[in-house]
Amino acid sequence: METTSTAAQPHRLNAIASFHAHIYFDDVTRSEAERLRQWIADRFVVTLGRWHDGLVGPHERPMYQVAFAVEVFPMLVPWLMLNHGRLSVLVHPNTTQPLADHTAHALWIGPPLGIRGDNLPEHSDAELPREPNTTPTIAA
Amino acid sequence: METTSTAAQPHRLNAIASFHAHIYFDDVTRSEAERLRQWIADRFVVTLGRWHDGLVGPHERPMYQVAFAVEVFPMLVPWLMLNHGRLSVLVHPNTTQPLADHTAHALWIGPPLGIRGDNLPEHSDAELPREPNTTPTIAA
Repeated sequence: METTSTAAQPHRLNAIASFHAHIYFDDVTRSEAERLRQWIADRFVVTLGRWHDGLVGPHERPMYQVAFAVEVFPMLVPWLMLNHGRLSVLVHPNTTQPLADHTAHALWIGPPLGIRGDNLPEHSDAELPREPNTTPTIAA
Repeated sequence: METTSTAAQPHRLNAIASFHAHIYFDDVTRSEAERLRQWIADRFVVTLGRWHDGLVGPHERPMYQVAFAVEVFPMLVPWLMLNHGRLSVLVHPNTTQPLADHTAHALWIGPPLGIRGDNLPEHSDAELPREPNTTPTIAA
């Protein structure tokens, strides 16, 4: 009887179709979140999502989303590391596994917050990059 | 009397001279850390640090360090997001602020662990990339 190798192999980078950053704020940090949003718009080619003062999706705090292409990751993520201030930021890939992407596959800048996984499917189509809505004029 | 604008400005990306990832493990996850180390060596141009079974520096769990150049960030960090398994990973920039780099400027993949900031100076020279000691042969 033949045997088949079942040694675990790592996920490939090309599983990632795009990224989202979620910028969380509260009453105390709201003005910092506004400033950060403008700084991002001035510096990066991204898709800025709506401002959510209420809770939406799996998120347990008010936030806005920044959707971006794989090519933007090496500028935006290090820049957020230096400039998030008191804000918590979730950065997650978009593969075909939304639940894992928001939990096991995610990174956090600033203190991690909860994610309500019961809102997220285990599998879906991967989200391709969206049409950017920023026109940056300042070098990051 | 002249006034000078004191509006806050964000840190610039060129403040970052290099990055470190710290891969943490314990008795339960040690073999996963060994496998991840080999996977990294096979795929990325980095400087793999010594294996530390004891506690060193500001770290509160056994770990090994992966030092890497700014240019490696867009491959290694997303790959670690997908492949860290049960391991916690700290990724921090090296600027001239070691204390901030390990705390406010850091990102975590997997559950965050403590950092003993009393071991870290507020200011120092920025650490430039080290000589790589890996010879990758597999595409990430």
